[in-house]
Amino acid sequence: MVSTLRSMTSATANPGSQSALRRLNEQRIVEALMAGPATQAELARNTGLSNATVSNIVKVLLDSDVVSTEPTTSSGRRALSVRLNSNSAVAVGIDFGRRHLRVVLANLAYEVLAEQTLTLEAGHRADVSISAAVDVLETLVADSGIRREDVIGVGAGIPGPIDHRTGSVAQGAILPGWVGLQILVHLEDRLGLPVFVDNDANLGALSEVTWGPYSGVENLVFVKIGSGIGAGLILNGLPYYGNVGVTGEIGHATIVEHGHVCRCGNRGCLETVASTSTMADLLSRGEPERLTADEIVRRALARNPAALRVIDDAGLAVGRALGNVANLINPEVIVVGGPLAELGEILLDPIRRGLLRHAVPLIGESTTLAMSALGSRSEVLGAAALVFQNADIAHHT
Amino acid sequence: MVSTLRSMTSATANPGSQSALRRLNEQRIVEALMAGPATQAELARNTGLSNATVSNIVKVLLDSDVVSTEPTTSSGRRALSVRLNSNSAVAVGIDFGRRHLRVVLANLAYEVLAEQTLTLEAGHRADVSISAAVDVLETLVADSGIRREDVIGVGAGIPGPIDHRTGSVAQGAILPGWVGLQILVHLEDRLGLPVFVDNDANLGALSEVTWGPYSGVENLVFVKIGSGIGAGLILNGLPYYGNVGVTGEIGHATIVEHGHVCRCGNRGCLETVASTSTMADLLSRGEPERLTADEIVRRALARNPAALRVIDDAGLAVGRALGNVANLINPEVIVVGGPLAELGEILLDPIRRGLLRHAVPLIGESTTLAMSALGSRSEVLGAAALVFQNADIAHHT
Repeated sequence: MVSTLRSMTSATANPGSQSALRRLNEQRIVEALMAGPATQAELARNTGLSNATVSNIVKVLLDSDVVSTEPTTSSGRRALSVRLNSNSAVAVGIDFGRRHLRVVLANLAYEVLAEQTLTLEAGHRADVSISAAVDVLETLVADSGIRREDVIGVGAGIPGPIDHRTGSVAQGAILPGWVGLQILVHLEDRLGLPVFVDNDANLGALSEVTWGPYSGVENLVFVKIGSGIGAGLILNGLPYYGNVGVTGEIGHATIVEHGHVCRCGNRGCLETVASTSTMADLLSRGEPERLTADEIVRRALARNPAALRVIDDAGLAVGRALGNVANLINPEVIVVGGPLAELGEILLDPIRRGLLRHAVPLIGESTTLAMSALGSRSEVLGAAALVFQNADIAHHT
Repeated sequence: MVSTLRSMTSATANPGSQSALRRLNEQRIVEALMAGPATQAELARNTGLSNATVSNIVKVLLDSDVVSTEPTTSSGRRALSVRLNSNSAVAVGIDFGRRHLRVVLANLAYEVLAEQTLTLEAGHRADVSISAAVDVLETLVADSGIRREDVIGVGAGIPGPIDHRTGSVAQGAILPGWVGLQILVHLEDRLGLPVFVDNDANLGALSEVTWGPYSGVENLVFVKIGSGIGAGLILNGLPYYGNVGVTGEIGHATIVEHGHVCRCGNRGCLETVASTSTMADLLSRGEPERLTADEIVRRALARNPAALRVIDDAGLAVGRALGNVANLINPEVIVVGGPLAELGEILLDPIRRGLLRHAVPLIGESTTLAMSALGSRSEVLGAAALVFQNADIAHHT
């Protein structure tokens, strides 16, 4: 519980405090070093921090073996070159899905060291996948030769909202059996490591600005279109969590005033017209068995007219909802992810039309819309990034 | 232009830089002192800053006469009591309206030192109200005995979006004659003072967390319902400006798919069903002259059934749009302002019904909805606050 609050708010709570500032500055230096070795003077220049601050932080990072230094010359003068020991801190990412479990180990250079994906039965109990995750994690650590003490924390992605106030999975999760579960406490008990929990869409957004191509982007929306539809937000350069931790619920934007009843209890929500479940409902009539998302993608790529029409209608509706989102928060970039991502322009085109139709012109024109390049690893990579954003990199040993 | 960028982004750009941090820490100390005199040890405790940081900042503030100190005892030990010289830094707020001009002078204790409101012709030219603002400002400063050198800057509120990239008033402003105007450059040329510009809804939001009752609130939405409808956002404790500076455009959320054409070029926008202009259109049929917003308020308070019905319908539509807003950014508080604010529950009740109907239950239940208590001074007070948030308090002399 304490850890949930830590995981959710450490980057934003009391932003001027010394400890938050120290961690932020450490992150800046570690990020700068990801581009390659640098002298302390270069680090100061690249981060905007003072020489004294850089020197203090490098000392702390040296003590905990996160960096190493070696003599060099810079502009003819002697200097110290600082190099990241990428494997000195390892983050674990876990993506809990409706029918899958993914685990990655990643290092400070945002390189995947080990990775495993399991298929689970739909409707499995939470403790089944938690046990499986613990087993996979232990096996991956053992097999990859990583020292257990270099694992600084575990990030876990859940396909549902997390209520900050209780540290538990909130109503509306795609995994109904997980609602009310104190996921963080469970995982910490089982793993004996700091745990950070977030929902899938938020992790998708974090993924795009860490592993993905949008590292300089201050304001980004990641939209996951799957059996549910949700968005994750990066605002002013930081993951955004709002009041109780439940944000980006664009799946429940009203699109059809008196439309179908939604699982949230309202009517005509975006999810009732544009989720992969709704697409499957529409396309499965007269079929011998219900279509999966993969089959919808396959048909659309084969230019099946019904599949293309259903995706076009769904895309327009998503674009309309995103027009409202863009009107409100005016992001630089909107990235679309989820199981339909490989459709590319087939899905992006109607979303773009809907967005341009419903956004204020100045906003529509200045918003970049793109498909995620991270595919189905988006959440698990974001979960690992969550650890680097929140765990104490320099003091884990 | 440089100043626009400064005014819009200084609090967020490069948040870990030394100068941004120094200003942020100065603000924290000044804010702590607004509660009354305190010793340096108390200031360190109340702000979370180190004793050394507090001591350095107090020294800088003393040098520029923002604070004064006197010996005291604390827990039996000798200490220095630090007291704010409230009038040592004065901010000017200017609210440019469609038919009015308001100017206030405010001090560091958020006290109004002088204030004047003028009525202007609807459709007046921009240079007319800018000249009037300069005259009123000079007269107020002279009459109130404030030293010109203690005026640290001018905040200006415009009822329209400001495009950050150009520092000018963007398409969609309630004052069509102002579109494209480089308002900031104009004002700086005329005044010889640092100028900070923002739109009316953003200033309303800032007003609520500075002059209003929501100073501790991290995430707040201020909705202004007038002849236009717009929102201002405070996110993670800071005014939020997004990519190009145009945010909170909820007036252009699509409410009726094939509804009336809106001034933005789309159809069925919230403004076409819930602005005071639309209310006036609906209520003026058969009337000898077109109703003003004040007359609509008067009739509704007198329980006129048509006025009540029109306000109820408008409130439901605003609530629906706010349901989407709350689903996306999950704020602690939504404050409603503008010329209808004195309607109180008559307007809040349908907004609340719309919000609860369209928000995800967990979010609807945890969002506080309230009417602004700042009335028509909301923007001008926010404009003065904008100066204290962005100008250099300690180095103005």
